[in-house]
This record gives sequence, structure tokens and C-alpha cells, in this order.
Amino acid sequence: MLQLYFSPMACSLASRITLMEAGLDARYHLVHLLTKKRIEDDADFRIISAKGAVPVLILENGERLTESAAVLQYIADLKPETGLAPPPGHVDRYRLQEWLSFVGTEIHKAFLFPTFWYKDDGSLAKPRARIAQTLSVPATHLADRKFLVGDCFTVADAHLTWALLLLRPAGVDIAQWPSLSAYLERMQARPTVKEAIATEIALRKTVAATPA
Amino acid sequence: MLQLYFSPMACSLASRITLMEAGLDARYHLVHLLTKKRIEDDADFRIISAKGAVPVLILENGERLTESAAVLQYIADLKPETGLAPPPGHVDRYRLQEWLSFVGTEIHKAFLFPTFWYKDDGSLAKPRARIAQTLSVPATHLADRKFLVGDCFTVADAHLTWALLLLRPAGVDIAQWPSLSAYLERMQARPTVKEAIATEIALRKTVAATPA
Repeated sequence: MLQLYFSPMACSLASRITLMEAGLDARYHLVHLLTKKRIEDDADFRIISAKGAVPVLILENGERLTESAAVLQYIADLKPETGLAPPPGHVDRYRLQEWLSFVGTEIHKAFLFPTFWYKDDGSLAKPRARIAQTLSVPATHLADRKFLVGDCFTVADAHLTWALLLLRPAGVDIAQWPSLSAYLERMQARPTVKEAIATEIALRKTVAATPA
Repeated sequence: MLQLYFSPMACSLASRITLMEAGLDARYHLVHLLTKKRIEDDADFRIISAKGAVPVLILENGERLTESAAVLQYIADLKPETGLAPPPGHVDRYRLQEWLSFVGTEIHKAFLFPTFWYKDDGSLAKPRARIAQTLSVPATHLADRKFLVGDCFTVADAHLTWALLLLRPAGVDIAQWPSLSAYLERMQARPTVKEAIATEIALRKTVAATPA
């Protein structure tokens, strides 16, 4: 069985949504990102992955795969019939990779990461000044589309949905971009997304109750 | 013919190296990243790509593809016999995607980007404090490997080579990681890498001579 290391509402949420969309059972390991401990047994998470970051997917053969862009495509390709990723070689597969990269670099690492990990204003002013230009890209793209790539839900949507969910706690009101608001509402109406969020919000209490 | 929008020694260098490794002719368009102008005719680069970032690859059918992770895989797949990307479906393809994501998010967006674009010390302290942990990941991986993925040069190597080249101007001495130094030396000995760097260093003067 696949195993997913995750932290509640971290970017590993997209992997959870994808596993659920693919109908794949998995064992989920909760990680405390500050202490780098696996909460179930207090084991050192850095032994699982030196990066100390989620998601980590443990494959059936025991290999460990990291980085959302890779983990999401791996899971999607286990169930090609779901359309969670366009088939390799199709131009839409590169569009999928383009969006996975954009969410991972421009929204996550250039904005959300400094916002949540760097507490001083000096570090935050520049990323904050840049986020509107960044968000205008998916907002324009989604003005006349239901999904990021092609005409069905893909792992790129799972990734962007996670990122958009974190904008509010990061102090950005996406109501400024009606197409993004409407998209996020549609995505949150999906049963998998709804259930994944409910599960992880509930698990936040477990993390909060664990001494750092 | 493919067309590549690039800026000298920006991350689009990896796309140039990959086009050369693949033996593909392309038309190259030099972009001034500060003015967002195409230098050959002063055209507005934001019309080509609203992101205003390189690389942008213009495909044979006129479509525009952005984001290094997508552009590099697209070029590699045009010449599968080169081994620049492992075949889709092979586990090494996900390893390739894992490294492309790591270089794009952790080295580029979390370190190089703030270092070169944010000029105040406040924005730089945190990214700088984090880079040693980041670089220890490829350093450990390359301690007993010649290439990032499998046993030949892939687009992940093109991407990492670019990132490592920029560490010195970013104030990080990679001599602290002998495996990274040795790797960068090996990569720089490749004819394509050598020629790509020489070409772009020379073109820097063109950008410098263009009024901002």
C-alpha cells in the first residue's frame, strides 16, 4: 500500500486529494513540521526524508518520492483512466507540468513559504508586493475555463486548490479575482476536496496538542 | 523552428543547453528582464508571455510554453534517443521531475530569486540562512553519482548546473560541498554547457548596453 507523509493543510493536501480522486487506499503519516517528528511514534522525520518537507510518498517497492510535482504525477499515472493527468506525450501533459511548476515556484515558494515561515516584515514586503501579478495569471486563464488543463479535474487543480486555500490565512483576499473565487468554490464543492480538507482541519488539533 | 525567449544566464540557460544537447536548431530571442522588452525590436515581452519571465518556448504550432520544468521535458521528449529525459512511465522520469521541482522551488525561488531581486538585507537573511541545508541534498546525492538521474546527462543536470553557476554571484561558495564542486566542473567541461555559457556571457554586454 502507498504511504503518504503529510502535515495538515500543507501542500501535501494536494497529494491526499489526488489519492482520493484516484480511489487509492494509502496509509497516512502525520508529520510535525516544526519538530520534524512523525507524530504516531515520535520518530525522526529527517530519516525518512533529509529534506524534512512534505509530501513524501512511499511507493509499493519502498522507494521514497518527494516534491509535489513528481508525487502528483506519479499517483495520477497509477490510474490513467481517471484523467488526473493527461497521457504522456500529449501537449496537455506539458501544460500540466507548466501549472504544477507555476504553483510550486511562484505561489508556494515565492509567496506562501516566506509568508508562513519568515516572521519579520522585512522578509515579507517584497513577496507581498508581487502576489497580485502572480495571481493574475491563473485568474486570466480561468476566466473562461472550468479546470486548469483540458476539460476535467487534474492534479494541477489539486495543487492550485491547495494554494488558493492558503491565501486567506496569508492575508490575501481572492475576491479581487472573481474567476479565482468561483474556481475555488467549484473545487471545494468536490466531495474529495471537501473530505480531504475536513480530515486535515480536524488533524490540526493533533499537531497543536503535540509539544514542540 | 522552435523559438526560445531567454535572458543571459537566467534559468533559460538550461533550455539553451538542452536544445544544444538535443541537436535542435532554434531561434533565440533576447529579453531584457527589467524593461520586459524583446531587445531585437523593443517589442513588449508581456505580450508574448504575461508572466514576463523566461524561458518561453514557442512550439512549431505557435503555442507558447513556459516554466523550465515543462519546457525542458518538452524539448527532451522531441529527441528521446538522447536520454535527456527517461521515458514516460519509468520510475526515473519521476526522479527527473523531483529534481526539476527541487531546483525550481528550493534553489531558484527560495534562494536565488530573492537574492537577485530583493536588494534589502531584511529580505535576504532568511533565504541565506536556509541555503546550506538545501544544498546538502544534492551534495549528498551526488557524492557517489555522476548525474542526478540514472547514468547519463538529463535536463535535471542542465537545470542544476545553471543554479550552481549562479551561487557564486549570489555569495555562496560551493567549495564547501566538494561533490557539488566536482559535479559543476564535470558539467562545465561538456561542450554544450561551455558553448552555452560563452554565448550568454557575451550577450550580457548587449543587455548592459540597452537603456533600461
